[in-house]
Amino acid sequence: VSYRYKDHIIINPLMRGGIVPKDVQKKLFEEGWTEVGYNVCHDCIEGRSSLITKPGIRSFLSEVAEFYGGDEAEHTFGCRAAQFAVMKTIAENSEEKVIISDPNSHYSTNIAAEMCGLEVVEPPHSGYPEYKVEAEKVAEKIEEVGRPALVAMTHADPYYGNVAPVKEIGKICSEEEIPYMVNAAYTGGVMPINMKEFNADFLTLSAHKSMASIGPLGFVITNYEWSKKLFALSKSKADWTGRVFGKKIPNLFGCSIGALPLVSCILSFPYIKERVKNWEKEMKKTEEFVDALEDLGDIMLLGERPHRHHLLHFETPLFWEISKTHKRKGFFLAEEMIARGIVGLHKGLSKHIKLSIYGLSDEEVKRVRDAFEEVANLKPSN
Amino acid sequence: VSYRYKDHIIINPLMRGGIVPKDVQKKLFEEGWTEVGYNVCHDCIEGRSSLITKPGIRSFLSEVAEFYGGDEAEHTFGCRAAQFAVMKTIAENSEEKVIISDPNSHYSTNIAAEMCGLEVVEPPHSGYPEYKVEAEKVAEKIEEVGRPALVAMTHADPYYGNVAPVKEIGKICSEEEIPYMVNAAYTGGVMPINMKEFNADFLTLSAHKSMASIGPLGFVITNYEWSKKLFALSKSKADWTGRVFGKKIPNLFGCSIGALPLVSCILSFPYIKERVKNWEKEMKKTEEFVDALEDLGDIMLLGERPHRHHLLHFETPLFWEISKTHKRKGFFLAEEMIARGIVGLHKGLSKHIKLSIYGLSDEEVKRVRDAFEEVANLKPSN
Repeated sequence: VSYRYKDHIIINPLMRGGIVPKDVQKKLFEEGWTEVGYNVCHDCIEGRSSLITKPGIRSFLSEVAEFYGGDEAEHTFGCRAAQFAVMKTIAENSEEKVIISDPNSHYSTNIAAEMCGLEVVEPPHSGYPEYKVEAEKVAEKIEEVGRPALVAMTHADPYYGNVAPVKEIGKICSEEEIPYMVNAAYTGGVMPINMKEFNADFLTLSAHKSMASIGPLGFVITNYEWSKKLFALSKSKADWTGRVFGKKIPNLFGCSIGALPLVSCILSFPYIKERVKNWEKEMKKTEEFVDALEDLGDIMLLGERPHRHHLLHFETPLFWEISKTHKRKGFFLAEEMIARGIVGLHKGLSKHIKLSIYGLSDEEVKRVRDAFEEVANLKPSN
Repeated sequence: VSYRYKDHIIINPLMRGGIVPKDVQKKLFEEGWTEVGYNVCHDCIEGRSSLITKPGIRSFLSEVAEFYGGDEAEHTFGCRAAQFAVMKTIAENSEEKVIISDPNSHYSTNIAAEMCGLEVVEPPHSGYPEYKVEAEKVAEKIEEVGRPALVAMTHADPYYGNVAPVKEIGKICSEEEIPYMVNAAYTGGVMPINMKEFNADFLTLSAHKSMASIGPLGFVITNYEWSKKLFALSKSKADWTGRVFGKKIPNLFGCSIGALPLVSCILSFPYIKERVKNWEKEMKKTEEFVDALEDLGDIMLLGERPHRHHLLHFETPLFWEISKTHKRKGFFLAEEMIARGIVGLHKGLSKHIKLSIYGLSDEEVKRVRDAFEEVANLKPSN
């Protein structure tokens, strides 16, 4: 096994926020963190990684909670495990079995619900070309359902990069006393977020998608009201030995293992705190890039305009036309980009593309734009 | 955050099998795998990491299944998530809610059961000083329970390093048609294992504990009979969009994310295959070490004799005596060892110690033994 894309510019929109800073990578290797993939456990006293004080995982989790405007945070096996913990808490504390989620949710939201026996109903989005989710539609859906066990909204969605009206929806949920989860997998770590402003009870995060960390790692953050339930300690007792596991949190598999991904996130966190301040600058850069790409010809950004997230989804009839007569068919686009040192377009697709230039330098952005221009000018090769 | 134990000899018995070979660490860093912690996803076509062919994750999982004598394998977020997947499958396919597990199980077995609403009952062990689990006691417990939903046995346990009679128990389960899981977290990857010989329906593994990998990573392996249930595909449908997630496996969170830990395991696997052949040699080295340590004075190995696993649990009245008058009390032992470049004894304990010399060179073993000898000769310092 060898990595095929070393030194390529990555434009996969779900990866850009997850790029690990070079000096963090170097530290992980040179300081010896990779020798044993969970060596923060050397000084574990209490039997749960989130309680470890050397290194300061416990204080790091407080810092994470505070940074996102919450009261208590735990690390998880990715955002999917964070969502699972929330859904499980809801399933065990509610008689209702229907939750409302947005029509642009990541599949992991739906799978987490399925794992916990919850049924997902969706408000509609606004359809082509913006696919927006409106608070009003969520309110209507709540009325229709009666009392959903949970409202789960994807802050910025992975299809179009639309930013949902999470504050307005939070206000509704708060008024109606419906538990409310915001999945910030694509925003937490790139833009400023405060879950209190959202009126959210639960915030879920992906460290390897948006917090510059090795995967798999996520976080679930909650308020004091829900923390006792979400982070409930084990109550089981093995019958003959009488063993109990009082420090373990079943919703998090007992302990979510403070392994290399967590170390990477601790090392990356100072960068995260700094970079969210550049969000407006990133959005301006993204806007200019959208204009430049659309100027190439028959290419149009989908999703809301103005665009408020770095994930870009273009409809690209221009590339679709080329693919029709190209010997590599739909594969030509991703392959031509790779030939130019740029990886991240979904292989086989040329009618639609998703990408991001988040965190790229001006020079790198120019390389990406130039590559698209060259490919747009390709003559069919047969 | 910085790693405090670089270049120390690690004797933590749950870590020795997880040490990542130096050249694998180097490759992870130098080849660029650490740039994005889940960059095997660049060439994901089907939407689940276990189906990726570039790099060959799919064929790797077949190789893993075959190596352990099973039919189908999936990677998981550690052995705890593997056990959870099994327990969930059992809970959904059985009307019984009681499972039998051994009294020396790792807590993650009990927590996985608790997560799935299963109650754990235990056969007794043989008590001090061997703490052995006998097949006969398991049979008696089965008779008492009537029809357990599952029998879950820890192959080598994390308390005493006893190897349970998993073949005999498997024979009983097979005859009585009771689903049978063997947790090989401490054996799979260090000693030869064939789950068919155990008559096991499920084998769970920890890559970061015994397969020389970065954490968190585990595997769950099963036979054809159970694979359709254990690896059942998603059946949910989001109501308005009509989205379905047909390639996703809910018991594994949809997709268990082929991230850096998985890459490390693929790179380490050739070492694993080689090293299990040295198991008898390792056992001989361990036996000699036990003799040498017991020769220091009032120190005795607990668990079965002859010992058949690298995890060693000693009762150490000798160190306990020293701790009584040492200014660092029970902490002196771990600290004195660290001062000699050896990390892995549980901090604060001196009455009992757990350690392993698995995979250490003769020279390193000598350093460990000499360090214990020096510490045994310490005069109380106040």
